[in-house]
Amino acid sequence: MPRPSNRDKILTEGLKVVHERGFASASVREIAQAAQVPLGSFTNHFASKEAFGLEILDLYYEQSHAALAATLLNDALPPLERVELYLDRTIAKLYDNDMRGGCLLGNFGAEVTDNCEAMRHRLIEIFEEIRQAFIHALRAAVTAGDLPADFDCEDTAGFMFAALQGAIMVSKTLRHDMPLQRYKRQIFGKILQ
Amino acid sequence: MPRPSNRDKILTEGLKVVHERGFASASVREIAQAAQVPLGSFTNHFASKEAFGLEILDLYYEQSHAALAATLLNDALPPLERVELYLDRTIAKLYDNDMRGGCLLGNFGAEVTDNCEAMRHRLIEIFEEIRQAFIHALRAAVTAGDLPADFDCEDTAGFMFAALQGAIMVSKTLRHDMPLQRYKRQIFGKILQ
Repeated sequence: MPRPSNRDKILTEGLKVVHERGFASASVREIAQAAQVPLGSFTNHFASKEAFGLEILDLYYEQSHAALAATLLNDALPPLERVELYLDRTIAKLYDNDMRGGCLLGNFGAEVTDNCEAMRHRLIEIFEEIRQAFIHALRAAVTAGDLPADFDCEDTAGFMFAALQGAIMVSKTLRHDMPLQRYKRQIFGKILQ
Repeated sequence: MPRPSNRDKILTEGLKVVHERGFASASVREIAQAAQVPLGSFTNHFASKEAFGLEILDLYYEQSHAALAATLLNDALPPLERVELYLDRTIAKLYDNDMRGGCLLGNFGAEVTDNCEAMRHRLIEIFEEIRQAFIHALRAAVTAGDLPADFDCEDTAGFMFAALQGAIMVSKTLRHDMPLQRYKRQIFGKILQ
């Protein structure tokens, strides 16, 4: 395996630092230190901190998309099981981080959107892709007869995505998964009926 | 009316700057400039940026609490109308800010909790107070017969608060109230049944 380039190290380690500390709070100096590269290496590889931010956003979304492909978009599984699996994976991932960090997408939505138009536009695209993955699973549930034929998949998918982001933010603040367990109960008990 | 003190000006104007730009992104220099006070005035009045952060959090929550008192906690109104009024006021407040800024409480939950334990603890208290205001309105709805006698007010209130935070974050990113309108439809159409 080839050694990772300084650029790759900055992206991989920088993503961790930003996820832990926030985008503005994570300084270029800390990112370079975490990546064990000289400070000048950052400016060699990235035109600006925003350019770096756009790349770690895509790097993070690669992982999120893999989770979507294995769950909501996975036509080999029964549709509503996919939803449950996606939520359980989301919860497990937060536990892996000791309930810290939350979701980088939601963090950027809260922290970065008003400061960087390019990152806001990329987030809008990503949010829509995740909503489409929810729509895909819900439509499959309608086809399978697990949801009524007139079920509003579009509206429900948008609600479920946004509500999940809120549950993740509150879970992160509490360092407890109760908000996510509540989310599961209300979604399966009321919304997906 | 007495002239506002430098301390008051830093809090009032600093809250606006932090709400617009994020906590880490808003520098002490920018805050002092916005308040039209010398830079040294900030350090005279606040032991640290975190100490300032705790005070603007309380200042912001004073306004949020006034909105709760006028809506969810307002026993003069029919219970479910209070919920609708609270959501409409939340949406109107976001429009007043051109759909920017979102909710400072959610922004701090996403950005600040992992960096400042004192602010995380204060946020937990505030989140719980808001959840209690939802519980108060939902219990009144049960008493009025607008919700079934076995309705789980505790669980639903926690879900509604967290989901609203997510809807606000996505609305802020999209600069559009569609996520909040979806929230209203799903809450009244499915959750509050």
